[in-house]
Amino acid sequence: MGKLRHFLESNGFQSFIVAVIIVNAITLGLETSATVVAAIGPALVLLDKVALTIFVVEIILKLAVYRLRFFREPWNVFDFVIVGVTLMPVGEGVTVMRALRILRALRLISIVPSMRKVVQALLRAIPGMGAVVALLSLVFYVAAVMATKLFGASFPDWFGTIGASTYTLFQVMTLESWSMGIVRPVMEVYPMAWIFFVTFILLTTFAVLNLFIAIIVDAMTKENHAEEEETRGTLGSDHQQIMAELGALRQEIAALKRPAAE
Amino acid sequence: MGKLRHFLESNGFQSFIVAVIIVNAITLGLETSATVVAAIGPALVLLDKVALTIFVVEIILKLAVYRLRFFREPWNVFDFVIVGVTLMPVGEGVTVMRALRILRALRLISIVPSMRKVVQALLRAIPGMGAVVALLSLVFYVAAVMATKLFGASFPDWFGTIGASTYTLFQVMTLESWSMGIVRPVMEVYPMAWIFFVTFILLTTFAVLNLFIAIIVDAMTKENHAEEEETRGTLGSDHQQIMAELGALRQEIAALKRPAAE
Amino acid sequence: MGKLRHFLESNGFQSFIVAVIIVNAITLGLETSATVVAAIGPALVLLDKVALTIFVVEIILKLAVYRLRFFREPWNVFDFVIVGVTLMPVGEGVTVMRALRILRALRLISIVPSMRKVVQALLRAIPGMGAVVALLSLVFYVAAVMATKLFGASFPDWFGTIGASTYTLFQVMTLESWSMGIVRPVMEVYPMAWIFFVTFILLTTFAVLNLFIAIIVDAMTKENHAEEEETRGTLGSDHQQIMAELGALRQEIAALKRPAAE
Amino acid sequence: MGKLRHFLESNGFQSFIVAVIIVNAITLGLETSATVVAAIGPALVLLDKVALTIFVVEIILKLAVYRLRFFREPWNVFDFVIVGVTLMPVGEGVTVMRALRILRALRLISIVPSMRKVVQALLRAIPGMGAVVALLSLVFYVAAVMATKLFGASFPDWFGTIGASTYTLFQVMTLESWSMGIVRPVMEVYPMAWIFFVTFILLTTFAVLNLFIAIIVDAMTKENHAEEEETRGTLGSDHQQIMAELGALRQEIAALKRPAAE
Repeated sequence: MGKLRHFLESNGFQSFIVAVIIVNAITLGLETSATVVAAIGPALVLLDKVALTIFVVEIILKLAVYRLRFFREPWNVFDFVIVGVTLMPVGEGVTVMRALRILRALRLISIVPSMRKVVQALLRAIPGMGAVVALLSLVFYVAAVMATKLFGASFPDWFGTIGASTYTLFQVMTLESWSMGIVRPVMEVYPMAWIFFVTFILLTTFAVLNLFIAIIVDAMTKENHAEEEETRGTLGSDHQQIMAELGALRQEIAALKRPAAE
Repeated sequence: MGKLRHFLESNGFQSFIVAVIIVNAITLGLETSATVVAAIGPALVLLDKVALTIFVVEIILKLAVYRLRFFREPWNVFDFVIVGVTLMPVGEGVTVMRALRILRALRLISIVPSMRKVVQALLRAIPGMGAVVALLSLVFYVAAVMATKLFGASFPDWFGTIGASTYTLFQVMTLESWSMGIVRPVMEVYPMAWIFFVTFILLTTFAVLNLFIAIIVDAMTKENHAEEEETRGTLGSDHQQIMAELGALRQEIAALKRPAAE
Repeated sequence: MGKLRHFLESNGFQSFIVAVIIVNAITLGLETSATVVAAIGPALVLLDKVALTIFVVEIILKLAVYRLRFFREPWNVFDFVIVGVTLMPVGEGVTVMRALRILRALRLISIVPSMRKVVQALLRAIPGMGAVVALLSLVFYVAAVMATKLFGASFPDWFGTIGASTYTLFQVMTLESWSMGIVRPVMEVYPMAWIFFVTFILLTTFAVLNLFIAIIVDAMTKENHAEEEETRGTLGSDHQQIMAELGALRQEIAALKRPAAE
Repeated sequence: MGKLRHFLESNGFQSFIVAVIIVNAITLGLETSATVVAAIGPALVLLDKVALTIFVVEIILKLAVYRLRFFREPWNVFDFVIVGVTLMPVGEGVTVMRALRILRALRLISIVPSMRKVVQALLRAIPGMGAVVALLSLVFYVAAVMATKLFGASFPDWFGTIGASTYTLFQVMTLESWSMGIVRPVMEVYPMAWIFFVTFILLTTFAVLNLFIAIIVDAMTKENHAEEEETRGTLGSDHQQIMAELGALRQEIAALKRPAAE
């Protein structure tokens, strides 16, 4: 078991898996070309099956070695889910399931350390966003219900249901065709509709921009704090050195005093 | 009265109000679905009335306990206005009033501390924006009057009145369809119109971006100032300690001098 | 002359001019409404003439008091140009000249201190942008010449002249309808056109974003530098105090030594 | 050879080359105007040939002086490639080659020091972006393969091949007509398509924004680190001075002790 673990964690095996991921990503990409499929279709299908088998065997071996500790590492869970998804029995959504196979290429993120770091840095920004995201969700829900009640009857395609309204409001928040595409037609029926939409745009863009400002300021202050800590550290050790020297001086003067007093 | 106050400020009562807000938000959301209304419409209306009654009773109790101090807390005013709005007698704008009831869900902001903090942080950014917002308003007014006089005759839908021009210029500032939708058609009548619009876009985007830069720099320098203050504090206390030690040394030497001089 | 100067710089006179500017801005705004003009048109024209007269008299008085020093203050030049423009004899461009009168409302910026500060802050950001703006202009010129030569023959409306190409590329840089409106139609004639436009978008958005990053970093480092200077100042004065104390100690010890050596 | 080198590096020669670049850029710009070509076409062609000859002679002279060291300076390689490209024999892509001649105007960047600095600053930001750009490329590849498999059959123009899908996804990432132009039509065939596109937009805009946040934070922390280093430097030299003074004091006290002990 120790040997197997050693093998699984070796650089050679890691590189082999990276190579399989890349080859698999390329074959899945080639499958989108009708001419390539006509020429070497069966070879592509075979390569895909080989790659999938390798991934499954890799996960089984890892499960055998690490047992339940396997699931403690989030990246293993990520790999497990991605490979598991493409093994699911396909019934109705055949095309969707076949399309999801390319998600296996995302395993590159879990296996290449520099990509892993970037994703972890992005994820680290998320907790600080929690409250703003909750606020944005609340604003979206309230605005979606209002839009559905106000404009749903006249514009069922855009505001017929809460779902449709949420999608349309997301489009409005990204500023895509918000005026020429959505609000001007709506204003022909409800002339005051601009109040609702301009308020919504101002609120959400202000919130989203503050979200990113918060991330910037957070990252900066962490860096800044570390620098200041270092300065204060230097300051502290300098101070201790001076105080020690002053203490020594005092002792010598005390020593000087005694014989003089004798 | 003290007991009532204790009850109103208890965690149990707060959680109960949060639950009522969420249930009310869901029922108001369900009202947008015709099939749900057909099935359990009367129940939804009843639940809405119960929720509204609870909110009104809550505010009356708070008014009885806190009296005029109630209005000193801005969040109370926020709750009061939101509940008050949905009690207003409905005449013409029935649909609008009914749609505004979902605003009650915004009471979540005033009652959940983490959301309250986010909104307060956003509001704190506003005073620093005052002068830039005033400048932007002036630029918008001047540009709206100019656009109305220059293009109003040929494009009454977009620039017919100052109001229409302001809305169109807001659209142009968000860059939505500014060229293909607005400026290219205008240029077919007034070939030099691009001078006006490109200047307007450059001025307003520059001003808006500086607005956000100002917010970032402001937030950063506050953090930075706090850090530096702490460093200077450490510096100051270190310095006092050294000076005290030096003073003590001096006294001892002075004490040494006297007997030696005797 | 001293009395006149005192009068011109008094708070009362400043407030009077502010009032005239605001009244004039409102009358010029009202002129855009046909119904208002029908009702009180002559009164608006009269008020406008009165306001203009006041502005001209104000500038003449200032010129009489300050003479050529008047032009040393950029805000005076700003006022002079704005009032001068609206006095120009109107021949062809009557509508344009009449529309430009509203620019007088911008005099508010030069007279209200807080707005003046904002504009000065915005202007201060400009020198640091010089080199990037020069680079962007060069990229625009090169791209405009290339686009005119490559696509001008087939799309004369968008790329027929260098001017038309520059405008279209500005639109592309703001990302407005760049793909559905411009590049997809162009690609139907020149399938490789995406190389040119995607490169252009990546280059210009990267440059523009770096422009704003430079402004942020510049503003931040200035603030940061001031804070650090203050810390180093505290450090320096603390250091001098300690060194002075140590020097005094040394002298006392030297004084101690002499009698002991005697 | 030393003389030739001196001449090539002289201010006079540099200014001459700048003048040739600007004149050449203007003549190439004028070539786009049919009326100008009709009037002075041959003169423009002549001027272009003269400019090209000067550039070629300049590079040959530099090669003669610096030999292979010429290629060690990236800006020389930049000049060499730009001039070389416009010398290539023209067969099919005549129009493209003729359009590429204006790229010579970019030589201004390599010759004007302030522009050179800006470009170098922009390039310096690139290595820090490596991992995020790799991640974005992976996300684009995976999304392009998925989009081709899912929507390619029904929308061959937008998602027919991986290339077409990548271009369309780039358009979606820039938010241009993403909803009204692309996703709403797609949703009429595949109602759940919004899941794919909204996820893609959230992922890529989040990644791109983090890219720029990283650049800002990186630039800021470098500045900040330099400032703190300077503070710590002052701190260090102050500390050494105090320690030296304390050491001297100690020696004097030791000297005081000896005679007293005798």
